[in-house]
This record gives sequence, structure tokens and C-alpha cells, in this order.
Amino acid sequence: MSSGHATTGDGARRPTAAEEARTLVAGNRMAALATLSEDGSPWASLVLYAALADGTPVLCLSTLAEHGRNVTRDARASVVIGASDVTGDPLDSGRVTLAGRLEEPGDEQFDAARTAYEAVAPGSGVYGGFGDFTYYVLRVARVRWVGGYGRMDSTDPGAFHAAEPDPVASGAASAIGHLNADHADALLLMAQKLCGHPDAIEAACARIDRYGMDLHVQTPRGPADARLAFAEPANRPGDLRAATVELAMRARA
Amino acid sequence: MSSGHATTGDGARRPTAAEEARTLVAGNRMAALATLSEDGSPWASLVLYAALADGTPVLCLSTLAEHGRNVTRDARASVVIGASDVTGDPLDSGRVTLAGRLEEPGDEQFDAARTAYEAVAPGSGVYGGFGDFTYYVLRVARVRWVGGYGRMDSTDPGAFHAAEPDPVASGAASAIGHLNADHADALLLMAQKLCGHPDAIEAACARIDRYGMDLHVQTPRGPADARLAFAEPANRPGDLRAATVELAMRARA
Repeated sequence: MSSGHATTGDGARRPTAAEEARTLVAGNRMAALATLSEDGSPWASLVLYAALADGTPVLCLSTLAEHGRNVTRDARASVVIGASDVTGDPLDSGRVTLAGRLEEPGDEQFDAARTAYEAVAPGSGVYGGFGDFTYYVLRVARVRWVGGYGRMDSTDPGAFHAAEPDPVASGAASAIGHLNADHADALLLMAQKLCGHPDAIEAACARIDRYGMDLHVQTPRGPADARLAFAEPANRPGDLRAATVELAMRARA
Repeated sequence: MSSGHATTGDGARRPTAAEEARTLVAGNRMAALATLSEDGSPWASLVLYAALADGTPVLCLSTLAEHGRNVTRDARASVVIGASDVTGDPLDSGRVTLAGRLEEPGDEQFDAARTAYEAVAPGSGVYGGFGDFTYYVLRVARVRWVGGYGRMDSTDPGAFHAAEPDPVASGAASAIGHLNADHADALLLMAQKLCGHPDAIEAACARIDRYGMDLHVQTPRGPADARLAFAEPANRPGDLRAATVELAMRARA
């Protein structure tokens, strides 16, 4: 899907590809950049980036670097941004590719671009936009999100720019740690009563987002993944506690 | 320089660009890959990679993914590999870009490629080289290493393949932590007696490699960076203790 609600086979709501993409862009500041060398071959490099309010990436490139010279010759470019807190199998975590053209921000966007970039690269104000350094915004034409093995989708630039980054992303890691360390019993009951795994013998929270959480469930029949939707989407990290308590109460009812 | 010993202004030996590049390739397993989309525009993606004994990257790509389809159409590709243990400013840590062509390994190289890839991706033996998955080796034509602000160099493929990854890299982080936590007095004495900063008031180890270490030194005149060469290159992590003890004794003499 490219817009609207994303649901799993059991109807539980999930972030859309556009929301996943915006969350990755908002939650990181390093990207790999692909540009075209003089002979048209691809050139990969690392860059610091910032994001405008609509998710547009902002870069600041020097013509002393090959990628900066490449862009002045051919504006076509692509960035890939991966989850910054990868533990375990890195190919089982999210990443998004944005492809389009790098253009200098117009007068109406220059201040926003510079302000956003300075926020991720303090001190860049002294060189950004001066001398050999130029600010660029990536005009996004294509968006490809991969969420790990088997989860992937493309979305269109309109849906990407309109989507909201997950507002609970900054609290997800600590919520997952707390649930797994202190509430394994409640997670197991949720798997048994709410996820269709009455024979579950163990359950762990693998992921949490504003709409719900993913459980890794162990059963005598083998492992299973389950999605549990919150009664209401969480709009800030502080909402995650009430949302998971409501799930636990529902499982005990 | 593209080969031979690298030295700093004070003559202290440092790893060459080729050695730095090989160390980065050996110490990681995730890379960003730049390939060419159907219209010739660049496409950035994330890949798992392994390395052959000479540093040649091995990839395993699926034609279900855009990068896999790109490579079957145009073999030109580039990977960028960054330090995996970045703390602080990510642009102040090392990364290397390798560019060339992705080719299927010949009969004489296939087993080595598969074995290397399976070591970083357990389970890939069941899909690697079969169905939509193909093993590739990157025939390296260009190497560009960036070591952080102000440190960068290109090297040629011959020097890259001939160089050795730093054999003490796996022990560097713990050695740095130990030196800074427990031997700040010895580091300060080294800065005062061996680095030409008699007025140093504080010194911390910023980096350690087989040839020596980099110190961040504080002086009443402002901060300074200094390079300290070991009496003999260290050939295994266990050699770092003796090498740093020798420096401390030299500083006290």
C-alpha cells in the first residue's frame, strides 16, 4: 500500500511504509549517499544529514570531496538510511532508500535547511553554504522501505512527505527492555489470550510503535510472530505505559 | 601515499591508507551499496558482506531486490564501509569507499566466497548461489579512505590487496578504555615528555593501532593532537600492554 492504514493478516494496525520511512529518516543523522562519478559509475560515501519538517533530507557537501563534485555534474542521487540502534541481525532491521535529485534550496527554504543542518552538525554554520560547501535538499522521487526479512514496500513521495514519524520511537527501546525484563508473565498471557496462541510457553516484545507491538512467541509447535494493536494509538512515549497496561488487563479479563 | 610506511610530521609511523582501508573492511559486515538503476541513476541500499583473504568484498544479492536487478544489467558498483563502533562525531571516524565491478566468482574462487559469506551470514548456505540469490565479488578498481576531519587518502587496488588489516583492532577499544580510566597519569607524562608538550595538563588516548597511539592533549595554549609510536609494532591485541608499558617507562626515564 502507499497510503492509508496498514494492517496485518489479523487486521491489527501497523505503521505504513511511508510512516516507517519517515521514522527512520527522523531517527538518524548518518546516511550513505550514492552519486555518479564522472564516467557514470556509482560512488558510495557517508554523509551527515538533517531532515526538514516534511522529511526532505538536507545535506552539506564540499567540492573537495568526490560526492560534492559528482553532484555539481549530475544531480541524481540516492540515500539509504538504516536503523541506528541495530542489535542482532542487521538485515532484520529497518532501512529506507530515497532517490531523486539534489538541489540547492531556494530562498524560501534556505533558512530552514541551514537551521535543520546546524541542529545535527553544530558548528556547520561557519562553513555551510560558504566556500566549497553547499547545502542541498534531496527532491525525493522514489521511496523504498525494507523492514527486515519479508517486510518491505514502496511508497510515493506524496505519502512519504504527508506521513508522520512515529512519535513514540524515542521511547521504544526502553519500553521493550522494561517489558521483557519485568513483565514476561503479562506478555505470555497476551500471547495466549489475545494472539491466538493458547499453548504459548514464552513471549517477548520484539518491537513497539504507536499502533501496537510485535511479539516473538514460543509454542510447542515452534516459534511464531504476533501483532498486538493498542486500543488507541500512542501519541507520545509517555502513552506507552497506559497502552501496554490496557493490553495486559484485556489479557487477564 | 599509496604504499610504504605512513609517517606523521614528527616521523611517527601510522597505518597507511591501504592498511586503514583493509582494517575497516575486516572489522565490519554491513556496507552501503551503490548501483545503477535502469535509467542510469544511482541507487543506495544496505548489504551484508564478507571479505576474502585479500580484502575483496563478497556479496550475495537477490534479483527480487532492486540492487540485484541493477547488477545484472550493469556490473558497476561501489560500497562504503564505516567504522562499526562510532561514538561521538560520526564524521570524525573512518570509512572507506571501494568502487569497481561486481562479478560472479570463478570456479577457483567460488568456494572461498561462499565460505566467507556463510561465516558472516549463518544459514546463507541454504539460499546463497541458488534460485534468485547470486554470490558476487567486487573487483576493486578504486579505493578512497577518509579517516576523519583532515585525514584522507586514495590508494591503489594493489596496495589495498597487499596490505594487512590491523591485527590489534579487536583489542583497541578496551585498551583505550583501560588507559583512559586507569592510567591518565602515565598518558599525561607521555604527552609532557615524549610529545613536545611539557606544559600539558591533561591527555587522553583517542586511538590505538599496531604502530602507536594518538593522544588528545590539553595545554594552557589550547588543545593539541599528538602521535606516539610504539618501539615495535604490535602484532596481536595481547602485545598492546607491553607496548604501552614501554612508552610509560620511556616517559618516566
